[in-house]
Amino acid sequence: MQYITGLLNIDKSLQVPVYLQIANGIICHIRQGTLKPASALPSSRALALGLKVHRNTVVAAYDELYAQSWVDVYPQKGIFIAANLPELSPRPIAESPQKLVYPNKTYFDVGDNKLSHINLQKQSTGHIIAFNEGYPDTRLAPVELMLREYRRFANYHFTSKYLLYGPEQGSENLRTELARFLGETRGLHVTPEHILITKGAQMAIYLAAQLLLNKNDTVIAADPGYCGANETFVQTGANLELVPVDEFGISLDAVEEICKKKKVKLLYVIPHHHQPTTVTLCSERRMRLLELAMKYRFAIIEDDYDYDFHYSSSPILPLASADYYGSVIYIGSFCKTIAPGIRIGFMVAPPNLISQATKMRRIIDRQGEHLLEEAMANLLKNGDITRHLKKANKLYHERRDILCNLLTRQMGEHVEFKIPDGGFAIWMKYLNGIKPKDVAEKAASMGLAVSAGQDYYYDHSRESEHIRIGFASMNFTEMEQATHILAKALKKLV
Amino acid sequence: MQYITGLLNIDKSLQVPVYLQIANGIICHIRQGTLKPASALPSSRALALGLKVHRNTVVAAYDELYAQSWVDVYPQKGIFIAANLPELSPRPIAESPQKLVYPNKTYFDVGDNKLSHINLQKQSTGHIIAFNEGYPDTRLAPVELMLREYRRFANYHFTSKYLLYGPEQGSENLRTELARFLGETRGLHVTPEHILITKGAQMAIYLAAQLLLNKNDTVIAADPGYCGANETFVQTGANLELVPVDEFGISLDAVEEICKKKKVKLLYVIPHHHQPTTVTLCSERRMRLLELAMKYRFAIIEDDYDYDFHYSSSPILPLASADYYGSVIYIGSFCKTIAPGIRIGFMVAPPNLISQATKMRRIIDRQGEHLLEEAMANLLKNGDITRHLKKANKLYHERRDILCNLLTRQMGEHVEFKIPDGGFAIWMKYLNGIKPKDVAEKAASMGLAVSAGQDYYYDHSRESEHIRIGFASMNFTEMEQATHILAKALKKLV
Repeated sequence: MQYITGLLNIDKSLQVPVYLQIANGIICHIRQGTLKPASALPSSRALALGLKVHRNTVVAAYDELYAQSWVDVYPQKGIFIAANLPELSPRPIAESPQKLVYPNKTYFDVGDNKLSHINLQKQSTGHIIAFNEGYPDTRLAPVELMLREYRRFANYHFTSKYLLYGPEQGSENLRTELARFLGETRGLHVTPEHILITKGAQMAIYLAAQLLLNKNDTVIAADPGYCGANETFVQTGANLELVPVDEFGISLDAVEEICKKKKVKLLYVIPHHHQPTTVTLCSERRMRLLELAMKYRFAIIEDDYDYDFHYSSSPILPLASADYYGSVIYIGSFCKTIAPGIRIGFMVAPPNLISQATKMRRIIDRQGEHLLEEAMANLLKNGDITRHLKKANKLYHERRDILCNLLTRQMGEHVEFKIPDGGFAIWMKYLNGIKPKDVAEKAASMGLAVSAGQDYYYDHSRESEHIRIGFASMNFTEMEQATHILAKALKKLV
Repeated sequence: MQYITGLLNIDKSLQVPVYLQIANGIICHIRQGTLKPASALPSSRALALGLKVHRNTVVAAYDELYAQSWVDVYPQKGIFIAANLPELSPRPIAESPQKLVYPNKTYFDVGDNKLSHINLQKQSTGHIIAFNEGYPDTRLAPVELMLREYRRFANYHFTSKYLLYGPEQGSENLRTELARFLGETRGLHVTPEHILITKGAQMAIYLAAQLLLNKNDTVIAADPGYCGANETFVQTGANLELVPVDEFGISLDAVEEICKKKKVKLLYVIPHHHQPTTVTLCSERRMRLLELAMKYRFAIIEDDYDYDFHYSSSPILPLASADYYGSVIYIGSFCKTIAPGIRIGFMVAPPNLISQATKMRRIIDRQGEHLLEEAMANLLKNGDITRHLKKANKLYHERRDILCNLLTRQMGEHVEFKIPDGGFAIWMKYLNGIKPKDVAEKAASMGLAVSAGQDYYYDHSRESEHIRIGFASMNFTEMEQATHILAKALKKLV
């Protein structure tokens, strides 16, 4: 007994509970061979006395050892180290290698041509401060509200059914609440069967592309535009046709020109706050786009992820709300509402398309996170999302105005921009022949990360005169500091 | 003042906090027009007195109204209903429809041929009790441990970086911990760069299929086998070649026959507890399979999702642990460790393949759930997963033995099975020409759901003599009740 007490070091200041320290200490000595199989352990009372801990602590430690099969319990006799130890000792199929198993290359063909255009996220490089491309402020993310919902999951009766396999189309509760939310905010009269829950807007774009595009099909997108969508279309083997975008949105004359020449399968549009130029597609063009889709029989992906963030005037109802032909696939996301890292998006479309997309989703990753989907359903139901959106809109509206003022005051003679109607960023042009790349380089040397104007055009070698400057994620002090550095960098370049 | 007090109904027994009841009541009356824009509200002290609540409650209600832009605050003057109300009133692009927006069919071609073989999950049909196909017991799911990790996310400094966009390959912490875990449990010596975190094993299978298979390529799988993988291969347009499976695993003679006749690109194998027959691929076949892969230059998907649940003897180290040629793509999952609804899986492969798979993943859904991945990393790091696996293994081991005993005792003359080495189910054969479909029907009429023997063979019309009977998710009482009904159903059929 004395012997075992001496083997165990208890440190109550550690985060590891004392009973686990005792259990782990005993396991450690069984592994090392200090404690032999089938040998007796002291009674919980005796060990508790020896270790100066409460007897229940030792009982918990012994329970843990029993649950892990390290000890056997014989009524009337006592507790013994297991005769057959539970240690995992897998049988090798060949000599176990001492070095890394995998070589750098496979000897079979991975076939990387289709994916060569995709850039992965770069590591951030330790600037003091950064203008991003337009992200929400994660400090506002309603994490506490989500946690409140998650805490309810600790209750088994509520949770168990969401821990098994669930419907591939997404939580029924969430689709019901979302149908209501879309009706109230967007005039979209749909039922839960029109909705598929996805991992962010990106998965919805991927599913639509997989279902509608084959090799050599034609798909139309704007340039400059959203590279995340373009990558997805190109990967299917489809041909991307690019149309210009002006202050009222994408050019429909250019779209019709293409339709006259070839069969178009799909058109991709961001109607609110086009990425990257932030313009809103005007009502007249919306009507004409629907007519073109009807006339030339193409499908429209309406990526309206930014609808909920509109400041200057009212947002315009989605194309989908006026679509009687079933040509519009409406895509949205809560990634900007909660946080980019919380991946919940959705696709709204006619039931035959949703049913195919659901099957496709099944083979991709089976289903979404049901716990997260249920939490989201509750937050929508009890109005938390609406309340959060109002607060965030108000704050982002203020921040937009503050940053516009700072930019005008501190570098008005070198830059030009229109105040955006909504979204998270300003599309700013450098004047006097100043190149975004040079500014980015100079600013970086002074501790500020700012866009070098890349990835806005499909032709990555094309130099942009504009950059995106995000305002939503920064508070006043941060905006002031960043603007100050940017203004100094510009002065050095002129 | 009296007027406003009379408009608001406070009910302290409701779950909605009182301050929100006040704020929502005021919003409601602004919307209805009872409270006019630009009109004054009573001071917080006066309203608190009138409503008989603490003054801070009214202050919180007013803060809420201000945050939502329903009121303006003028220092020295007081609080007023906003002159410009924040209500959302989007501009329509056309007459807003009163009926459902979407028709049942799109007028463009959805192209459903590739997906017609996929069945979506059916709604459960209200049986009293069910033998499932082999699921873990979600009542054991370490939800409390996950919640403990999630609670830490309430702390902003910890969380903010995981709420933004993150690395597409998955959490660096999780890949580091997983590399260690795979080394300790599977003799797999790999680094984090060999690992891609996925949404369950299914996404890893999908990614591998997308990268390696083109139309008309040949892929080999076992029959009976796992339909979730077969669906994924067929969807790429590849040809599926089926090989039989016996008590030592898939037939390698059959594999070599196919390799001699045509170029094989990929082979799919479940080495531990083959789905559905539960057999383990023996060491000799493992060595020969690696040699065949080398000789005929095909890739192997080793779907080892069941490795951690082995009871009878030690598990055999993965094919991947002996693979110096980089031919094995090793796939695993924590969906059975935590719960099927918590989707975390992984792919382990040479870096060039992982880099392509990561790009592919970026266009599918951008990234995984970083909060979940960080929680998982911590649970692996502090040993919680290992402890949970030990406990679950012990319990499932006991349950396997109990169910085998019950089946033998109560229906031994009508059924035949081998005790499975691990996993979650028994592969049981009905004797005397009893058909699974008939048993399932009879049992259903008595309140028991049990497999009708479908979906085990690629040819869905083929009738199986065997069914899978899951034991892991049921406690003793449940197993006794279910076995009792099954025995009665069998007796009625003989």
